[in-house]
This record gives sequence, C-alpha cells and structure tokens, in this order.
Amino acid sequence: MRKIHVIGIGAGDPDHLTIQAVKALNTVDVFFLLDKGEEKSDLIRLRHEILDRHIARGREYRLVEGRDPDRDRRAGGADYSPAVGDWRSRRADIFEAMITDELGGDQTGAFLVWGDPALYDSTLGILEEILERGKVAFEYDVIPGVSSVSALVARHRTGLNQVAKPVQITTGRRLAEGWPEGTDDVVVMLDAHQVFQRYAEEDPYIYWGAYIGTADEILVSGRLSEVSDRILRLRAEARARKGWIMDTYLLRRD
Amino acid sequence: MRKIHVIGIGAGDPDHLTIQAVKALNTVDVFFLLDKGEEKSDLIRLRHEILDRHIARGREYRLVEGRDPDRDRRAGGADYSPAVGDWRSRRADIFEAMITDELGGDQTGAFLVWGDPALYDSTLGILEEILERGKVAFEYDVIPGVSSVSALVARHRTGLNQVAKPVQITTGRRLAEGWPEGTDDVVVMLDAHQVFQRYAEEDPYIYWGAYIGTADEILVSGRLSEVSDRILRLRAEARARKGWIMDTYLLRRD
Repeated sequence: MRKIHVIGIGAGDPDHLTIQAVKALNTVDVFFLLDKGEEKSDLIRLRHEILDRHIARGREYRLVEGRDPDRDRRAGGADYSPAVGDWRSRRADIFEAMITDELGGDQTGAFLVWGDPALYDSTLGILEEILERGKVAFEYDVIPGVSSVSALVARHRTGLNQVAKPVQITTGRRLAEGWPEGTDDVVVMLDAHQVFQRYAEEDPYIYWGAYIGTADEILVSGRLSEVSDRILRLRAEARARKGWIMDTYLLRRD
Repeated sequence: MRKIHVIGIGAGDPDHLTIQAVKALNTVDVFFLLDKGEEKSDLIRLRHEILDRHIARGREYRLVEGRDPDRDRRAGGADYSPAVGDWRSRRADIFEAMITDELGGDQTGAFLVWGDPALYDSTLGILEEILERGKVAFEYDVIPGVSSVSALVARHRTGLNQVAKPVQITTGRRLAEGWPEGTDDVVVMLDAHQVFQRYAEEDPYIYWGAYIGTADEILVSGRLSEVSDRILRLRAEARARKGWIMDTYLLRRD
C-alpha cells in the first residue's frame, strides 16, 4: 500500500521542525512539491534547505514538482472565493496524477506544509477528495507542526488568549465583515487588505509579524493607533523588496 | 543577566519536541518543575523522560521542584474562577523565589510547558508579574510547541477550520454559556464537565481525544448522537484507571 505523510514543517525556521517530522522525512521516497509561481521561490528554497539539513546523508529520495493551478485571482486575491472549489478539484487532479505516476505501490510519499496542516491548508481536503474518487489508494497520516500563529505569539512573548477567555482564528475577509462576536482576541490570517485598519476606533492592541521565523522576520506590536502606520509602511516596503509577503496578526481588546 | 526559556514541549509524545526546543534544553542550567500533586505524577515522569532523551549525555543540569499552590477547587474544579488571581500571585511568589534562590546571575533556567505556552497556560503572565515586581531581573524567550489542539486534529486527520471559515478555541465553562456566535468549529479545552452533551440536539461532529500523543491515547470521532455515550464511558473508565485525565475536542457543525 502506498503511504503518504502530510508533514507540518513550521513557520519558516528550519528548527521549528519536530523530531517526529524529522523522523518522518527520513522515511520518504518521494517528496511532492508544488510550484506556486515566481513570488514564492524563497519558500521553495527554504523547503530544499529543510530537506538538506534534516535528511540523513546518503539517504536517497526524489523530488517531484507539480505546477500549481493558478487560482482565479480576479475573484479576490488571497481571499477564498467561489473559484476555490474548481481550484481544489484541479489541484486534486495534479496530486492524483503525481501519486499515481510517481509513487510506487510500496513507497512512501510526503507533502510538506508550512506551519501546521490544520490551519487554512487544503492538503487534507484534497487527499480525501482523491480517496473518494477511488482511482488510487493510499494510507496517510498527519504530523502536526508549529503554526505561524504559535510562532507569532511566541516571538511577541504573549499568549493567544486572555485568562479563561476564548480566541478566534479567522481570515482577513471575515474580519472585514465585523469583529467576531463574543471574543476579545482575534488572530487574522490570509489578510491581503490590512483589514485591521477598520478597527482604529476601538484601538485594540496588535501583535503583527511577517516572514516569522526567517531571517527577514519583522515584528511590530502596540496600540493600533500608535503602530498601524508603521505596519503599513514596513509591510509595503518588504513586499516590494521581496515580491511576496506572508503576515499574521493578533488583535486584542482589553 | 539571568536568562529563562519557556519551552513548549508538545502534547505528550516526546517526539513532538521541535529542534529549537531540543537546542534550548541543551543550554539550560536549571529546570524549574512544579509538582501539581499526585494525580499528575505521570506527567512529571514524562517530563523526566523528555529530559533524559533529548539532553546530550554528559551535560550537567539541575532540577528544582516547587510545590504548586493548591488552587481553590471549591470555586469550580478545573474551570477558572475568581480564585485564579490569588492563585497566580501565590504561584508568582514560588517562581520568584525559585529564580532568585536557585538561578545564578549568569545562568539559564527553563520552564517546560505542555503543548504550546500560548494556549491556556499561566507561565508567561506569571513571569511578567515577577518582572513588574522588580525584585529579580531576567531575560526570557518563548519557544513554541505543538499544542494539544494541533495534535488532536492531526490524529483525527482533519483541519481546525472548514474552508475559509473561522475556528474558536475556548473553555468548557464558556461553551456552557452557549455555542460561540459566528463560528461552526469550536475547540474546547479544560472541560471538566463534558459540556458537549448540551449540544445533542444540534448534533455536530465531535473529534475527541485524551492523553494525546501518549501510549494511553484515546480517540473517538463521529456524530455526537452516535459517539457521545462512548466518549463518556471511555473518559470515566480512563479517569478512574489513571487517576487523572487530559482531554480536548473539536465540535464541528455542517
């Protein structure tokens, strides 16, 4: 039976990998990598660095690189949109072909996922879709990783929740619809539009970070009224300089 | 200057430790451990196993064990309560004394935190309280870990959120006040009363786990109506057998 590991590789720092992930890497015959286009070539390089650093010398493995289907950007940039369903099916086509064509019947494959496969990542849903189609069979397991959310608050030396209170993890698109009911702590991912600006009047604390765990890491925290402009400037500068950005933030009301 | 690492050591499996955590362990002169009483002696043993396994042979370190102040259980068991403030100050007294008395001026200490220090853990708040008091000075950093939340959903091979939707992480006590507004996915920690039973009518999916990542791990998932009784029975049996239990669950509405 084909076997697949979905491995969370942490938020950017190769030392975020768990021992469990390192052990799993060293059982893999074929790594499936997706080329998401020019802007993410830094991340592809970082993935290669992780393999070089953590796989035992002399161990043989293959890299199979697929071309990610271009998501329909007209419908909302980094936000999800009705185009997601199509995009996911096209991605499942690519994954299915890679697994069928490149993974031997008794071999182990792996998908490497930034952060933790549990948060805003499509890999598990896609693998389930492929299994439902029934054309190729495999077993798979999930190896949890340090999410960018955990890494963000660790670098800021704060918690996700206030004592005994809840925390919500959401997207920029959802935050644009309003502050989530019933929670004072909101973690925002996938925000291409810096939606935090809408909450200037409430003036929460913001703990913001970009490229967390990497040499390019930027961290800013403080009252939104005091740091909002600085975040916007640093974010725009970094994005122009590197060609891409990945950032996350926690908003906290007293 | 005294230095302190707050190290997330994962949800129970010693292989959950990150490389970053292992490197940090190997810089520590003094580990501060809290004895939380008989029922948690399994966890103390597991902590010792983590140190034995991951610290380089020959490296010298000391263990300093403090006695945790008994939290006032009358006010609500595992739930937080107005007694928390007092309890935290008493705990800060103990931490402060341990740091002052046991950590040399140029030494490195560490607190080992189950899961991720970012979720429902008091260590960071206590360290900040000690620094505010101003009697002992130190630097500290936080090393993120795999939370029991990440480990739970990895074992169940599901994500925390549905596509493009938010997820809320909350406590049993909060869930007893009602299903959180605006989210269909709710992770519940610190639930001593199996509050999920109140949502039988809505009949969400539940992904439940206890002792996650350890040899005693128990996992149950399914429609609440179909698995609720089994969870209650398994939970009661395990708690009686081991004398303590640590469980977490995700409720998911369609």
